[in-house]
Amino acid sequence: MNVPTRPKAELEALGDPAQMRRVIRSGAYDGRTLALALEFVQANLAVVPADYASDFLRYCQRNPRPCPLLAISEPGEARLPDLGGDLDVATDLPQYRVWRDGELTEEVTDVRSFWRDDLVAFALGCSLSFEGALVADGLRLRHHEGKGRPFLYDSTIETAPAGSFRGPMVVSMRPFAPAAAIRAVQITSRFPAVHGAPVHMGLSHLIGIEDLIGEDLNENGYYPDDEIPVFWGCGVTPQRAIRNARPPLAITHKPGHMLITDVLNSKLAVL
Amino acid sequence: MNVPTRPKAELEALGDPAQMRRVIRSGAYDGRTLALALEFVQANLAVVPADYASDFLRYCQRNPRPCPLLAISEPGEARLPDLGGDLDVATDLPQYRVWRDGELTEEVTDVRSFWRDDLVAFALGCSLSFEGALVADGLRLRHHEGKGRPFLYDSTIETAPAGSFRGPMVVSMRPFAPAAAIRAVQITSRFPAVHGAPVHMGLSHLIGIEDLIGEDLNENGYYPDDEIPVFWGCGVTPQRAIRNARPPLAITHKPGHMLITDVLNSKLAVL
Repeated sequence: MNVPTRPKAELEALGDPAQMRRVIRSGAYDGRTLALALEFVQANLAVVPADYASDFLRYCQRNPRPCPLLAISEPGEARLPDLGGDLDVATDLPQYRVWRDGELTEEVTDVRSFWRDDLVAFALGCSLSFEGALVADGLRLRHHEGKGRPFLYDSTIETAPAGSFRGPMVVSMRPFAPAAAIRAVQITSRFPAVHGAPVHMGLSHLIGIEDLIGEDLNENGYYPDDEIPVFWGCGVTPQRAIRNARPPLAITHKPGHMLITDVLNSKLAVL
Repeated sequence: MNVPTRPKAELEALGDPAQMRRVIRSGAYDGRTLALALEFVQANLAVVPADYASDFLRYCQRNPRPCPLLAISEPGEARLPDLGGDLDVATDLPQYRVWRDGELTEEVTDVRSFWRDDLVAFALGCSLSFEGALVADGLRLRHHEGKGRPFLYDSTIETAPAGSFRGPMVVSMRPFAPAAAIRAVQITSRFPAVHGAPVHMGLSHLIGIEDLIGEDLNENGYYPDDEIPVFWGCGVTPQRAIRNARPPLAITHKPGHMLITDVLNSKLAVL
């Protein structure tokens, strides 16, 4: 379903995070959140049973670049009041992935029917927050000229394991002219809660990426000769770790379909 | 003349900037300042007649990456009291270059005999200050494995002109592994008074450097395949601008033979 074009109230919702969550909760929107409530933090979601929660928490703590923790729910609770008074992670994302024993089994628009008393929800920072700061500084994001998402890769950078959670760091790549790449390091360094500084730049083969453009080229804009690839830790990384840990049940956002919060992006800047 | 090995007082002087200046002023040391008074700011020197001083000041203000201004003397004065109570720029550098009508005419260890009542001295920040911060963070400087100075190049980046001062930006290059390059951007961004963040990285042909290693290889350590070149504005840039402006007289430091000040490097960190 696309953004409704008719009702004025729903168009206004695009800039208001609480109103946008109500539209999503009602089932009226199940698309990507890229262009919605631009000034507000969007989060990656990971939900695991309490038995797995302390290992997953340690996993995030050990890997802050791909898994920057924004909020954790009480066991059994789908509320994250620090991110929004009415916020309910079981209904407020446009699309979810459901994982059983580490395998992706369903993609759904609501996870109320899957909820259990022992589930713990983790909200992790997302690069959309720092992309706003990059654009505000006049930097050009090439993927905005394509299908709206940056290039993603499984890198050979191994995350630090915790319990049974382990696996490769998924990285997002944005190409920049060299001076802009330097500026991008400065700007994203101010946002450690949303992946922070890049983890790698240039020489992509050193992190196992032999074919930088590959099949993604047509989907994701282009990669000019006079720019260098800059790589950030990506919030899809926990989905790889969940595959390896194989909890009986886990729930995540579907990539691009994020949790919209009431927190202003600018509030996450440390300087 | 090399560092004296005999007198204890002179050995102690190596760590004390005021004492080291006295040793240099006495004529007992005319070598490079690289390893001297490591915790204290060393400065590039540029001296021009008062007629040229306001253009040169504007030139520095317009080009803060290669020409970060630390202090300016009163006309005719060789003192820079903000950088050291006893400091005398006419005697306290190990070696000088004297320029007439834009041509290098002499290299000397003392410029008292050249001094005029209308000369204005400019002290500009130097990369030695941020190199200390890089090493303190555990980063490896490849040129420390060679002859002790980084690779320097005339780039095709044009500086912003002021009056008759103009010319290419001279850049210094240090190779780093990608993650270390990112860290180097963060660290040097804290030091705008000593060149600050890099001006370029990777893709050196974009700034006119076709032969990155060239003849410098044997002198300056090596350039490993798995590192990327990172370029900073260099304090030799004003010497190019002086060549173009052709003042009847100008005095600069000889590269590597800097003005040692009483200011702690850490005091220049903005964050």
